[in-house]
Amino acid sequence: MTNPLFSDRDVDFLLYDVLDVSALTKYPYFADHDRQTFELFLQNARKFAREKLYPTYKLMDEQPPKFIDGKVFVHPKMKEHYPGMVELGMTSATRPAEVGGQQLPLTVSTVASAYLMAGNLSAYAYVGLTSGAAHLIEAFGSDELRREYMAPSYDGRFTGTMALTEPQAGSSLADVTTRATKNSDGSYSISGSKIFISGGDHDLTENIVHMTLGRIDGAPAGIKGVSLFCVPKKRLENGALTDNDVHVAGVIHKIGWRGLPSLALSYGDRGDCKGWLVGEPNKGISYMFQMMNEARIMVGVNGVATASVAYQEALAYALTRTQGRPLSSKSSSAQPVPIIEHADVRRMLLRQKAIVEGGLALVARTAHYSDLAEHATEEPVRARSKMLLDLLTPVAKSFPAERGFESNALALQIHGGYGYSSEYLPESWLRDQKLNSIHEGTTGIQALDLLGRKAVAGGGAAMGAFREEIVSACEAAAAAGLPDLWTSAFQAALIDVETTTFYLGAKGLEGDAERMLLHAADYLELFGILAIGWQHLAMATASRKKTAQGEDTAAFLRGKMLAAEYWISTEIPRISALAALCRSGEDSYLRIRPNEL
Amino acid sequence: MTNPLFSDRDVDFLLYDVLDVSALTKYPYFADHDRQTFELFLQNARKFAREKLYPTYKLMDEQPPKFIDGKVFVHPKMKEHYPGMVELGMTSATRPAEVGGQQLPLTVSTVASAYLMAGNLSAYAYVGLTSGAAHLIEAFGSDELRREYMAPSYDGRFTGTMALTEPQAGSSLADVTTRATKNSDGSYSISGSKIFISGGDHDLTENIVHMTLGRIDGAPAGIKGVSLFCVPKKRLENGALTDNDVHVAGVIHKIGWRGLPSLALSYGDRGDCKGWLVGEPNKGISYMFQMMNEARIMVGVNGVATASVAYQEALAYALTRTQGRPLSSKSSSAQPVPIIEHADVRRMLLRQKAIVEGGLALVARTAHYSDLAEHATEEPVRARSKMLLDLLTPVAKSFPAERGFESNALALQIHGGYGYSSEYLPESWLRDQKLNSIHEGTTGIQALDLLGRKAVAGGGAAMGAFREEIVSACEAAAAAGLPDLWTSAFQAALIDVETTTFYLGAKGLEGDAERMLLHAADYLELFGILAIGWQHLAMATASRKKTAQGEDTAAFLRGKMLAAEYWISTEIPRISALAALCRSGEDSYLRIRPNEL
Repeated sequence: MTNPLFSDRDVDFLLYDVLDVSALTKYPYFADHDRQTFELFLQNARKFAREKLYPTYKLMDEQPPKFIDGKVFVHPKMKEHYPGMVELGMTSATRPAEVGGQQLPLTVSTVASAYLMAGNLSAYAYVGLTSGAAHLIEAFGSDELRREYMAPSYDGRFTGTMALTEPQAGSSLADVTTRATKNSDGSYSISGSKIFISGGDHDLTENIVHMTLGRIDGAPAGIKGVSLFCVPKKRLENGALTDNDVHVAGVIHKIGWRGLPSLALSYGDRGDCKGWLVGEPNKGISYMFQMMNEARIMVGVNGVATASVAYQEALAYALTRTQGRPLSSKSSSAQPVPIIEHADVRRMLLRQKAIVEGGLALVARTAHYSDLAEHATEEPVRARSKMLLDLLTPVAKSFPAERGFESNALALQIHGGYGYSSEYLPESWLRDQKLNSIHEGTTGIQALDLLGRKAVAGGGAAMGAFREEIVSACEAAAAAGLPDLWTSAFQAALIDVETTTFYLGAKGLEGDAERMLLHAADYLELFGILAIGWQHLAMATASRKKTAQGEDTAAFLRGKMLAAEYWISTEIPRISALAALCRSGEDSYLRIRPNEL
Repeated sequence: MTNPLFSDRDVDFLLYDVLDVSALTKYPYFADHDRQTFELFLQNARKFAREKLYPTYKLMDEQPPKFIDGKVFVHPKMKEHYPGMVELGMTSATRPAEVGGQQLPLTVSTVASAYLMAGNLSAYAYVGLTSGAAHLIEAFGSDELRREYMAPSYDGRFTGTMALTEPQAGSSLADVTTRATKNSDGSYSISGSKIFISGGDHDLTENIVHMTLGRIDGAPAGIKGVSLFCVPKKRLENGALTDNDVHVAGVIHKIGWRGLPSLALSYGDRGDCKGWLVGEPNKGISYMFQMMNEARIMVGVNGVATASVAYQEALAYALTRTQGRPLSSKSSSAQPVPIIEHADVRRMLLRQKAIVEGGLALVARTAHYSDLAEHATEEPVRARSKMLLDLLTPVAKSFPAERGFESNALALQIHGGYGYSSEYLPESWLRDQKLNSIHEGTTGIQALDLLGRKAVAGGGAAMGAFREEIVSACEAAAAAGLPDLWTSAFQAALIDVETTTFYLGAKGLEGDAERMLLHAADYLELFGILAIGWQHLAMATASRKKTAQGEDTAAFLRGKMLAAEYWISTEIPRISALAALCRSGEDSYLRIRPNEL
């Protein structure tokens, strides 16, 4: 049996029984859809992921793109994969019909993309980047840019990149130095260097659109002087694509995502690189945040997908690999049993299941808030959903990255010595996963974003909305007959999180950002535990309400209950100690000086 | 500046100020030594590790041994490294003079080997395996075997392996099927297959001695029918080395330790493989435990070494890489600062420091108990030290493996996008580290060993000795003027650990091994936190007692205090929740059935 990538049953349960995505079709934007069209879209993505992408995953890991004479050549299989995914509608699934999109909920397209990522994350990444880049032009670009660069991106002729990072600046976008000098024709001459540009060159499509952060001559220093430019690899001149002086300056030898080139790019070496301003000058960072926020959710989805495919692999291995005997029957004359019979192996599997299914629910719920924030017709629903979307984004980005890495390590561990070899797949997914704590804002940056901005947003309004969600999940759980101990655990945890947030928020108001954010990493951790716990509570409630049809479904529903029980018993109790630590003022690493390390 | 591998100052502080290894010289076995001879030995190892081994680490990672026509050819640099390490005395440093050894304390040789491992773990592994294999023959083999196979191993002409694992049996040594048929000359004909045999073939020395577990025809089933054999690659016949029919059946493509081949071996394909029984028939497992226990401590040392070299790399990077501005001064006109100025980067560094230095102290202390257990002249000291050695071995093996992996991931994280590339070294150490949770007994097996055997050994006597150590560390801490809050945290944690141990032990006495061991993984975790905390407390006590000479030493001592404070504030509080979980009876993964996952 081939790796299913995700449990279809779990995904369907999440979409229809937990999140009730079908209810979104009451809004005009989604009105042409129904559960059937969602299922059709999802089914096509599943099939493509399993039959086309997954079988070439290892191949593309082993044979990364080639760099010859300044040009990048991707794995030949990508020439089939890319058009295939465009045909599935992945570049513009959520976009409006007027730009050729399908107006699907992000919730549905996110889950579909999760299968594609689990099948072959590098192959999907070209699509994700293109979609995000084109959406930037759609949202903020001129009609001309939309026609010339957005349209061919959505329809699969061009791909896109996000070109933010510079070698000297890293995560610090305030220090971007790429230079833009205005020309008389309204374009800008671009010169500078970018690094870690995924898909920055390839032979997959005829053109590449680099959404590039730069600084117009004379612009203010820092973040407020950064503008966004559309800088194509080839520019349209008199109706023909002409070389635009963007060069590959180097190739990064990444340890994972090896099917996707990561490049250093050099702009304007010959003084002939043109870019077009997107939106207004000096507002580049705020525009780019649209793409970054989308990308952050997609990184979370990737974390879940990479953990899921490895979990499925470990589960299949544990069911078939025989070794040792149960603790209860040590007789050496007994036959060895499948290792899944060992409680500690089941512990490692249940932990992976809880991380994967909890993580998928979190990213899908975050996408669901995005759908409501953009397309609900009721203004209060849009506003509230936007607040929750913003609050959950750093958690949805980083929890799957960090715990996904743990989950991937457990999948390797279950394979024992074999897991430590490249003959088996878990080690490659472990490598892939590690990037997710780094790109699109490191975990440290997500932690600062969560505590420093999102959790204290609206003077407590964001936390208030979060509280309402948890309280209403508890009420639904109680009504469905889930144990009182579970709901009281959540109530206690919620108080801990709120108290901690307000305590630290007060430090911020006093102007002591350093003390406020000192334990941001611990805060992110405890917030993630609660956010994932909430998903498990909601899934357990839906399980309890669902009537099993046959033993197969009954087993599935029991599994959901046990995953919730596991998370609530082993993780939720950690919140109190973490909250106490956040409030304790413990400052060993604030005080330690470089020469004391 | 090249990577120092370890902080020499920390190592010397540990050996002389914390553990007072010089005091060992009062025992006859170590009487020819003094601090000067220890320092000379250590200094030679440090120099070799830094100047010879480390510069070839990346090279050997990139160019693994070649497998040509059934034979393995190691990296040419190994032809210099191996004799060099033999010359340092690493094969027999702790062994008695009568077999050519130096009678050094294991504490000292362990720390010296830590440098070699940090420099190039694969290169050192050949020595470690050879030393362990020769020690097995020394302890249990006949005079003939000692002469023919032990002596040339200690003196560097042969290398050794441990050949336990078989493809179908994995960790389950009860299922070993390698067959041994007695010959009229007293030897045995050996046939069977082994897998994951490190250093199982190479062109480094003229012979290889495989310490092999097998089953004599007619032996009982299970663990009690397993015998230990010395099976050379070439056997001595009429004074000449003759091919002994041991073949390389396959090469495992390991993801780390790439300088050391891991092989599948086939014995007796031509019916001409001879082995010699070591010790008595059917006692192979008990003999092999000598080598395994030594190897487990060495795995712990490896975990520490692999984390340490990466920590040193991350520290140097954080001191030089500039990016962003402190939270307290966000002005974009300010110059970017070295990233070590960001509190969250210091958090990641201090965490690594606490894991590395706490881990090194634990493995060194475990080795110190081994020295006392073997060489103290007072019988009660020997007995008590043996009990503590046994108790700490699974913790010393697994804590550095698990937390070292976390530490290595943090070192990569500090390097940001660069850390995710093979142009930088942290990713290779992360790969190396992952093996340590698998080989020489997985973490799951160490957890069962700790809780199921060691913690309940002697009807509570082992735990009693452990308690005495912690209590006396607390008394010393109080006498040195360390905060009362610290010692009271340890007293509370100790009660938690004891209560939990006795509660779970009682389940075992009732015959319910399954319930007793259900949370063995959590128990190992909490025990490790306490054991490492103890080391930090002891180091902080020694720091407080030491007078600084100059600012450099003062900074070092402040750093030791802060590492202790960090561990006591952030990790020790976790013990109570983990202990409650162990006692709670939470049994989600015991109950979950395979079809519910």
